[in-house]
Amino acid sequence: MSLLQDLSWRYATKKMTGEKVAQEKVDYIIEAARLAPTSSGLQPFKVIQVTDPELKAKIQPIAYNQSQIVDASHLLIFAAYDSYTKERVDQIFAQQENERGLPAGASDDYKNMLWSGLAQQSAEQHFAHAARQAYIGFGLAIAAAAEQRVDATPMEGFVNDQLDALLGLEKHGLRSVTILAIGHRDETNDWLLNLKKVRVKTEDFLISFN
Amino acid sequence: MSLLQDLSWRYATKKMTGEKVAQEKVDYIIEAARLAPTSSGLQPFKVIQVTDPELKAKIQPIAYNQSQIVDASHLLIFAAYDSYTKERVDQIFAQQENERGLPAGASDDYKNMLWSGLAQQSAEQHFAHAARQAYIGFGLAIAAAAEQRVDATPMEGFVNDQLDALLGLEKHGLRSVTILAIGHRDETNDWLLNLKKVRVKTEDFLISFN
Repeated sequence: MSLLQDLSWRYATKKMTGEKVAQEKVDYIIEAARLAPTSSGLQPFKVIQVTDPELKAKIQPIAYNQSQIVDASHLLIFAAYDSYTKERVDQIFAQQENERGLPAGASDDYKNMLWSGLAQQSAEQHFAHAARQAYIGFGLAIAAAAEQRVDATPMEGFVNDQLDALLGLEKHGLRSVTILAIGHRDETNDWLLNLKKVRVKTEDFLISFN
Repeated sequence: MSLLQDLSWRYATKKMTGEKVAQEKVDYIIEAARLAPTSSGLQPFKVIQVTDPELKAKIQPIAYNQSQIVDASHLLIFAAYDSYTKERVDQIFAQQENERGLPAGASDDYKNMLWSGLAQQSAEQHFAHAARQAYIGFGLAIAAAAEQRVDATPMEGFVNDQLDALLGLEKHGLRSVTILAIGHRDETNDWLLNLKKVRVKTEDFLISFN
């Protein structure tokens, strides 16, 4: 199957059965997010996996009581850096140099240029940038779920600050941006299942300068 | 090949040959972006395809003279809505109702709730939200290129306002957010080609509540 077939298969599952998805498949989805390209390789986001039923029950009211929160097998919460710090940037480049067998400091020119730009920005600008990178990983996780014919619902409808507090994300320097609920569609009760997938037509989506 | 194999194959190509990529393959990449899920199905972004050499030459200085801008076969510029408008939201829901064979107005309760929230936000908040949706499509386009073994470089390093002005995006109500340069790697001259892909380790990327 091709990516386009996978994307045609998937839909934003509105009602899930509560059945478990094999951890191996969820690990595959997380791995796709981990391999996502990000700006300067900074990878300014993490994935928080929630399977604990009690925790899911606490998340549900924060997410406007949407049923997928508790009926999903796994919640994958994408959380971005609240800000870039010198330490975070240094750590990424040190790891790159180390794994690539380069001398320590080999990337200093690039790193210093990058940091001098970041240092002029506010934490809110950093977070906005980091959040966008998280969405690249989010897109790839959606593709990975579809490839495995695992249902997944992209969810932005939740109160971010409350979720951050519940999960203790501040101490990790993270802020939640989006959730991917992983589970099995309830074929009997999902109102969206049999409705046509609608997208803007190509002629309205694409502008060409040839 | 699987998505994970595709993602392992790809890298941010630093030097391209200038050879053409078949339009059929680029169309496939654009189609992946078009099929991307977005918040409430709003699809608040478009793709601008540039193959015109003169236009690429004008974009290059706006992108800090990076060589891929002119050595790419196609530039795919992802541009997000500068704001949500009642008209844009109405149009999306009217299309959904029409293509799904629902009576006009069937989605009004949801649409009105959505719009009442959006109406309280600034254009800058709208754009920030729309930009994130564009990055989902951007991630899927990256996956689609890799699946076809087409090289692609994700590029954020350009002066957005200048690119918007050059392309006349304001009249479309769009602002550029990122570029995917599509082309062929120059195996002799690309310094990054043989360097190890480095990612944060899974134990540092994933936080679990099980």
